Amino acid sequence: MSLLVVGSIAFDSIDTPHGNVERVLGGSATYLAYAASLYTDVRLVGAVGEDFTDEYMDVLRERNIDLDGLQRRKGKSLFWHGRYMDDMNERETVEIDLNVFSDYEPVVPDDFRDSKYVFLANARPALQMEAREQLRNPRLVLCDTMDLWIETTRGELMELLKRVDGLVLNDGEARLLTNNKYPTLVAAGKRIMDFGPKYVIIKKGEHGAMLLTHDGIFAVPAYPLEDVFDPTGAGDTFGGGVMGYLAKTGDLSFANMKKAILHGTVVASFTVEKFSLDRLREITPADIEERHGEMVRMLEIL
Amino acid sequence: MSLLVVGSIAFDSIDTPHGNVERVLGGSATYLAYAASLYTDVRLVGAVGEDFTDEYMDVLRERNIDLDGLQRRKGKSLFWHGRYMDDMNERETVEIDLNVFSDYEPVVPDDFRDSKYVFLANARPALQMEAREQLRNPRLVLCDTMDLWIETTRGELMELLKRVDGLVLNDGEARLLTNNKYPTLVAAGKRIMDFGPKYVIIKKGEHGAMLLTHDGIFAVPAYPLEDVFDPTGAGDTFGGGVMGYLAKTGDLSFANMKKAILHGTVVASFTVEKFSLDRLREITPADIEERHGEMVRMLEIL
Repeated sequence: MSLLVVGSIAFDSIDTPHGNVERVLGGSATYLAYAASLYTDVRLVGAVGEDFTDEYMDVLRERNIDLDGLQRRKGKSLFWHGRYMDDMNERETVEIDLNVFSDYEPVVPDDFRDSKYVFLANARPALQMEAREQLRNPRLVLCDTMDLWIETTRGELMELLKRVDGLVLNDGEARLLTNNKYPTLVAAGKRIMDFGPKYVIIKKGEHGAMLLTHDGIFAVPAYPLEDVFDPTGAGDTFGGGVMGYLAKTGDLSFANMKKAILHGTVVASFTVEKFSLDRLREITPADIEERHGEMVRMLEIL
Repeated sequence: MSLLVVGSIAFDSIDTPHGNVERVLGGSATYLAYAASLYTDVRLVGAVGEDFTDEYMDVLRERNIDLDGLQRRKGKSLFWHGRYMDDMNERETVEIDLNVFSDYEPVVPDDFRDSKYVFLANARPALQMEAREQLRNPRLVLCDTMDLWIETTRGELMELLKRVDGLVLNDGEARLLTNNKYPTLVAAGKRIMDFGPKYVIIKKGEHGAMLLTHDGIFAVPAYPLEDVFDPTGAGDTFGGGVMGYLAKTGDLSFANMKKAILHGTVVASFTVEKFSLDRLREITPADIEERHGEMVRMLEIL
């Protein structure tokens, strides 16, 4: 089944202890759509500037991502400059320029509005809501968010949470969203389910992920990578792997959602091995299957 | 097979956001031995003061722990006063009095020296080494450590690591021991294996644990508990569960070590449900089996 991804497409400059890149392809919707395209057909809705030349369009086209929802607007694309500290677990934003995103409002093309699987990538909740309200009878809508929106637009986010099936967020965001009032992520995740989402997926970086549903809880470690080259996009490609797998299989049982979470961790583990989409562009579904099999065997207790 | 546990026995006063206790039974060897006694016969070596009355001895005796290696010395038992902050993930030491431990040197009774399974609980590495050198041909010696020893007695610790089979430590300690030079716990753990231990077991609190061996790496989430009442002793009872299971089964294959790690996470999940040994005193092997089964099923990907 086609998956619709709505969100930001950007250029990123990234500093890590072992190297820097300037103006490489980034953005949460970009990472998400690209990762999901390893599983299923993907439709992308977002905005880019005049600097988003054919060279970049071709990267998305090489995975058959449908770009009919991509608005090319006057001005520059969203730009983010981030820096990772020595242990790669902390990062700071050096610069962010919204550019064409500063007054962007998502328009879902008419023939995308019947999409059954939809991921609203990280953006201001009111914009995610605008996209949500253009959909006709979707089967599964997931959204992501970030600390900025929890702190500055909590009311909008709470409205959105009543209109989605699932929320994907990281552990710090889960604690923030529940005002640091709960002693465990399980308790925080359950509280978030009270806000509306049937599915809460908590990303824990090198510690893996947790899925909370009304049918059960699933916690899984990350793929045990020895090196992390650049963590940018790990969370988004995790979401892309999860959603791509669900859209492909069409099975929302708890057992299949566990598999989807595992696919998310596997795709994310590839993402961090190189800058930007570089590693994801090299791998095939067979590479994913191999690492997925390793994870299944690792978790098997006989 | 009997398991020998060497280390500290203490009284703890603990402040948490939901309540306090004063002078309850604690100490790393106490927690470890008690947890392991759910699996196998345990022998304990350590020192207590005159305040360690029969009431406390009886708690250990109720699990048939062999107390022939327990020295009762003039003075008071080791005392620790700790306080947990709001989110239970941070704690501070309010007070620590070594008391009878200040000049204690471990003496392993002659008929304990043939123990095949030995856990050197957290103590100054030179003391752990003294106990180690009294053993005759053990099959598996694990030790624990803490940030204090890494910072103040690194040389002693490095000597000890050449004389043990495995090291159990938490994630922060693993990073500290490798000078925060590695981007992942996998890389840090592998570096620690270079220091001597064949097995490195990294405790990650609510994120679970990781086992590194020359045969493979196993990462496992924690049992998804909703509430944590008091985290004191979680790490020690994790070690006790791991080592108790290994001593009971006598199987050091990678597949069986995975099971042992899972037992450690399960026992630790009970520990944190009440103060001191209160929860462990209530449970039976059947309770452990039940939660262990839940974990096995959670990790099963079908």
